[in-house]
Amino acid sequence: MNFCSDCGKPVSLAVPPDDNRLRHVCSHCGTVHYQNPKLVVGSIPLWVGEGRPQLLLCRRAIEPRRGYWTLPAGFMENEETTEEAAQRETIEEAGARIALQGLFTMLNVPHVHQVHLFYRAELLDLSFAAGTESLEVKLFSESEIPWDEIAFPTVSQTLQLFFSDLNAQREGRPFGFHCMDIRRRLPGERSD
Amino acid sequence: MNFCSDCGKPVSLAVPPDDNRLRHVCSHCGTVHYQNPKLVVGSIPLWVGEGRPQLLLCRRAIEPRRGYWTLPAGFMENEETTEEAAQRETIEEAGARIALQGLFTMLNVPHVHQVHLFYRAELLDLSFAAGTESLEVKLFSESEIPWDEIAFPTVSQTLQLFFSDLNAQREGRPFGFHCMDIRRRLPGERSD
Repeated sequence: MNFCSDCGKPVSLAVPPDDNRLRHVCSHCGTVHYQNPKLVVGSIPLWVGEGRPQLLLCRRAIEPRRGYWTLPAGFMENEETTEEAAQRETIEEAGARIALQGLFTMLNVPHVHQVHLFYRAELLDLSFAAGTESLEVKLFSESEIPWDEIAFPTVSQTLQLFFSDLNAQREGRPFGFHCMDIRRRLPGERSD
Repeated sequence: MNFCSDCGKPVSLAVPPDDNRLRHVCSHCGTVHYQNPKLVVGSIPLWVGEGRPQLLLCRRAIEPRRGYWTLPAGFMENEETTEEAAQRETIEEAGARIALQGLFTMLNVPHVHQVHLFYRAELLDLSFAAGTESLEVKLFSESEIPWDEIAFPTVSQTLQLFFSDLNAQREGRPFGFHCMDIRRRLPGERSD
């Protein structure tokens, strides 16, 4: 941030009164421009069908991590709820209709200023199709998951926890809700 | 937002290519300035002691809702996790040392572009004291909660759910994790 989005004059870094952090403060109008973490929200679309349970993954058509596989997810927008964001992203990236179930994971990624949320979901039919941000969209059973080609650690972690809970569920245990912090950096990921 | 924070030139509202929402776009350098919901994170500090269970509330010294009671909470900062944010806000607003327990509520407030998280917490000692953003800090048993003077609907909702689960816990049921959407507006609250 170089300029004040209110008045257009230069900003500088300063600790405002009654604060203890460096903020971008306008040298002209005095506005303090706070920067806060963003929510990334997605779904874990499960198809049971007749065979083994399968999850719907998207291969990314955009950077970062173009060509890698991910769960449908993206930045939450103003005016929507987390559930609405999960459904919207699943439609936009995978063209998939889902019925949302409970929140499954909340993963802090403090070094990139993000919190990721993933909801369990039932895939309602097989008429999915890659959206503009996906190269392809495909169902994977547990043994088919391309673990070495998963785009983000929050997605790998969510997939591992999901299959673990899915197997435990067969023994009568309910799905959990899992909170974790992810501090591992991806190749080339900024270190601020 | 009137000016580009990158180059200082005016921004205008436009739908970028491959997007479907109005964004602030710089007329000069083309930067798209996305705006996303913020996380507000806090704690529910419980003191059991010898008598009835009590919760620690803060009376707000700042707008909005100056003079009303709230749980210690505030905007999550970059570089921290949700748990770190809950502990920091509890220290800053209530001078209170806590041991965090599980996440208890996640409340969407879409019309103000916020998601609120509250963690259950054990208050570790009675040496709390109002911070600069609080007029006073005080323990309340369930029957003493000033329900008509609670600052925000997310706090009223969290308190109601907490006492409900606390009473259920005495009958052997565990605390839950509750997700809700709050669409009720406060007096004077913007309606964008």
